[in-house]
Amino acid sequence: MNPPLFTESFLLPPGFRSAGVHAGIKADPAKSDMALIVSDVQDTVVAGMFTTNKIQAAPVKMGIETCKTGRARAVIVNSGNANACTGKQGVLDAQEMAEKTAGLLGLSADEVLVSSTGSIGKPMNMPPVRQGIAMLSEALSAEGGADTAKAIMTTDTRPKMCSTTIVVDGKTVTIGGCCKGAGMIEPNMATMLSYICTDAKIEAADLREALKTAVSRSFNKISIDGDTSTNDSVICFANGGADNDSLNPDHPDWVLFQTALNGVIFDLAMKIVWDGEGMTKFIELQAQGAVSDQEADKALRAIANSFLVKTGMAGTYPAWSRMVDVLGYCGVDIDVDKLSIWYDELPILIDSTPALPDAEALKKILHSNRYTVRLDLGTGGAGEAVLYTCDCTEEYVRINMF
Amino acid sequence: MNPPLFTESFLLPPGFRSAGVHAGIKADPAKSDMALIVSDVQDTVVAGMFTTNKIQAAPVKMGIETCKTGRARAVIVNSGNANACTGKQGVLDAQEMAEKTAGLLGLSADEVLVSSTGSIGKPMNMPPVRQGIAMLSEALSAEGGADTAKAIMTTDTRPKMCSTTIVVDGKTVTIGGCCKGAGMIEPNMATMLSYICTDAKIEAADLREALKTAVSRSFNKISIDGDTSTNDSVICFANGGADNDSLNPDHPDWVLFQTALNGVIFDLAMKIVWDGEGMTKFIELQAQGAVSDQEADKALRAIANSFLVKTGMAGTYPAWSRMVDVLGYCGVDIDVDKLSIWYDELPILIDSTPALPDAEALKKILHSNRYTVRLDLGTGGAGEAVLYTCDCTEEYVRINMF
Repeated sequence: MNPPLFTESFLLPPGFRSAGVHAGIKADPAKSDMALIVSDVQDTVVAGMFTTNKIQAAPVKMGIETCKTGRARAVIVNSGNANACTGKQGVLDAQEMAEKTAGLLGLSADEVLVSSTGSIGKPMNMPPVRQGIAMLSEALSAEGGADTAKAIMTTDTRPKMCSTTIVVDGKTVTIGGCCKGAGMIEPNMATMLSYICTDAKIEAADLREALKTAVSRSFNKISIDGDTSTNDSVICFANGGADNDSLNPDHPDWVLFQTALNGVIFDLAMKIVWDGEGMTKFIELQAQGAVSDQEADKALRAIANSFLVKTGMAGTYPAWSRMVDVLGYCGVDIDVDKLSIWYDELPILIDSTPALPDAEALKKILHSNRYTVRLDLGTGGAGEAVLYTCDCTEEYVRINMF
Repeated sequence: MNPPLFTESFLLPPGFRSAGVHAGIKADPAKSDMALIVSDVQDTVVAGMFTTNKIQAAPVKMGIETCKTGRARAVIVNSGNANACTGKQGVLDAQEMAEKTAGLLGLSADEVLVSSTGSIGKPMNMPPVRQGIAMLSEALSAEGGADTAKAIMTTDTRPKMCSTTIVVDGKTVTIGGCCKGAGMIEPNMATMLSYICTDAKIEAADLREALKTAVSRSFNKISIDGDTSTNDSVICFANGGADNDSLNPDHPDWVLFQTALNGVIFDLAMKIVWDGEGMTKFIELQAQGAVSDQEADKALRAIANSFLVKTGMAGTYPAWSRMVDVLGYCGVDIDVDKLSIWYDELPILIDSTPALPDAEALKKILHSNRYTVRLDLGTGGAGEAVLYTCDCTEEYVRINMF
């Protein structure tokens, strides 16, 4: 098979329309704050993955129920207020958003998903939200992808989009996606919203499995600050318009479809890391030699969530010694005499003894804006993992102080 | 009983001498970098508590063994290099430090404890260390407490000392202590060194229990950044010079002694939080309504280690909503509909519904340099905990970048 080619756009497949507008939730009129994505095809299926946080924003609770049915045709999104920790009124507000959107689109309320992102614990300001829904229903367009990607941003510095097309059964299948997220980001999702639209024909259950696989390798492998939000949602619509034979694991092009979906979602996840609040460096952490993949993953998350490691990465402090410190307290099986660490391919520590690498070579890596740190936990086990993270700078603190 | 009075000094009880000098480990000649504490009494007993990190610096491994015997007469300390992750040479260097000190003091090497604090992963520079040991043995003095407290500092901005005296069996018993620590500090100890000297008469086993109790309520209840270091050590010498009846849980003044020891060590621990790297605010976190004390403690540690909570505290962002977020992902039992939070006594969230407090009253608290956040986890359980922490500022990042 030919590998899919990816473009930095939120390409809407035929049968989808979307829009993004400034409704007035954010004070700055230059910043759009509401978005709407609609599938015009009756038989559209949906799959969704949501935060694992026990505290779930009102729209997330509704979305989980809707996605169980596998049926939805639209998602209405606001940025600027997460509608989380807002009590009973928050539930009523989210319901009203779904109902009002459904009314204008001729849908039933249970076909409309709702997403909110922004500050937690503030009551929704509904008058601009109501106005925004009306504006969006007028602005819907087949070319609305970029506007949508912009409208869902909060502390993001740029919209995040990725699309691809593949050929299945001789039919062109488009997968277009966008996402937002820059802080309060850890695995198991984050203050992270992502919307994927495809015209592939696929049953809801198969779409759910494909989405789960793609998310496990992407959004669930990134960490900005270790904080898992109340609102994370990844929603994937498939409207079947490409009219391919229905995709499932027995279809000859299933791997191609999964690869394409993985690619779009992985690219979106990496864009989140590259736009991490205040970040200046993209770090790929790899663990090997753990007793299990779970232990390897646990070690990397502890490292990625260490204040000292992340602030060290922001400068030129060779944070490997702080990583060793984390390995010692994070509760994962290690052999304290057989730890090894490489920065890119440069050995730093071998069998727990400093390798005293060439200072210039190490300096060059520490000054670059992207490098890999590989850690061997020394147990001789086959457990391994990867995690994508970034440094923690003074700018991160400034962004989150107020 | 009269409550003990505490003074901000490292008062050496009769029979102890100490010193602090600049040996040349640190480049700046104005910064002392080695210290020595000696008990001149043959029958001195010792108790020690050390880091729970699996990665232990060479001197920590030795100290654990020595403290098992309950017998030691001196501790030699260097700052500027932690002698951690230094391989076999690090062990030899730590042994040499004990041997050289013992030789000059007329002790055996196994009566001398060694502590190191500073950078991890750098080989020890032994020539200045050897010179420092000789200088210290000349400089020992009954008034050396303050010099000792200064010499153990790394990123600390000030020496940390506390002493008290009590009367036991009509005899004056002195308890004097000092500590250092400002970063890489979490419970179960930290890049934290503390030395306590008393002339109380007490068996080693009883001293160990008293120390354990005091540490569990102080050093193990603070968190600067959640990183537990490779070098943490609390060492308590008792030389018996006060000639009281030996203290043990059946002694009528046991509670007085424990209270005094608790007080000295608690004061030292609070001084660490108040000197947290870059800190501007001291936060006391309280949890209640958890299913167990352990769960309450786990929830508070997750909150104290959240980048978003701690950076929010640095400014005027009411971080309570981020705390709710943490409660949702930290793996502790909560009732999502019954969470309550108070800032000082101001209700912020009651039964998971925002209490919409008076904005001016909240602002006043958020602008103060010390406040309490009390969280009820809503389970109705009797589990509770307390944790002392501080905010995370841009200055923290600057300190740890290089």
